[in-house]
Amino acid sequence: MNLFHITVPQFEKNLQNMERWIDKAVDHAKNKKFEVDTLLVARLAPDQLPLVRQFQVVCDNAKMCAARLSGKEAPSHPDTEKTFDELRTRIRAVTEYVRSFKPADFEGAETRHVTLPWMPGKVLTGSDYVSDFALANFFFHYTTAYAIFRHNGVDVGKTDFIGSLPFKDA
Amino acid sequence: MNLFHITVPQFEKNLQNMERWIDKAVDHAKNKKFEVDTLLVARLAPDQLPLVRQFQVVCDNAKMCAARLSGKEAPSHPDTEKTFDELRTRIRAVTEYVRSFKPADFEGAETRHVTLPWMPGKVLTGSDYVSDFALANFFFHYTTAYAIFRHNGVDVGKTDFIGSLPFKDA
Repeated sequence: MNLFHITVPQFEKNLQNMERWIDKAVDHAKNKKFEVDTLLVARLAPDQLPLVRQFQVVCDNAKMCAARLSGKEAPSHPDTEKTFDELRTRIRAVTEYVRSFKPADFEGAETRHVTLPWMPGKVLTGSDYVSDFALANFFFHYTTAYAIFRHNGVDVGKTDFIGSLPFKDA
Repeated sequence: MNLFHITVPQFEKNLQNMERWIDKAVDHAKNKKFEVDTLLVARLAPDQLPLVRQFQVVCDNAKMCAARLSGKEAPSHPDTEKTFDELRTRIRAVTEYVRSFKPADFEGAETRHVTLPWMPGKVLTGSDYVSDFALANFFFHYTTAYAIFRHNGVDVGKTDFIGSLPFKDA
């Protein structure tokens, strides 16, 4: 077990969960006869990032975590999405990207120095980055996107949030 | 590094972060001249758990994750809190509890069988439990509590959510 196992597989699963949330938002908009993309500017507070940015930042968190821990350069995504269909394309591109990583890419990641753009001259070790920041920040935006949907009546629930679980017979 | 390092320290930090959110809610209520405990029934959707339950479930997630991974029996907390002061007491009790664990308590936790009350006869391995459920569910309720505060005008921000980070000089 290394840092790969607690990051990449759950990013991959949760990104796919977000596509199901979009399916449910599309259904809700059809039932209520509104244009689904109006939800992209929804927020829970006026000084909070709107829903479209929550999706984009979730994607960036997954992508940057995998890239930083493996010492690779992440592909660029310029935040130009204006529809849920475009967000689906972004989600799928980032899912493919994180899926391309293997546990071996994360060998030594625990002690690798990770730099963050807003803290020049400072580093976190790979394990501190994962346990203190990367997972928390991923879930911050992932849950906020979910909460904005919930607040707007989209029929998402805990199963859509957690996704499938690899239960085995006892 | 074992499952201890990606669970217990961040539970401990994030539980303490929640006390700072309460401080800010108390300030906001004083400024706006309302009784802070009215926020305990706030929700973002009518079929969502209210704020007081979000706090209780965060506490339970931290407690149960540490107990399940180490094969210990967790102390019981009967969900009777009716004020933020009582929630502080619960948070501190659970913080003390998770702080009592050591990395050695988690030896072998990766392959330990974890059972969940709503899935009788089924098990998750300790690593699947952490990567697929325990962290996601902790952050689900942690972020929802934060989002309910944000939606109600409490001045919490990303720093209050993430807490301190162990940066070192590059």
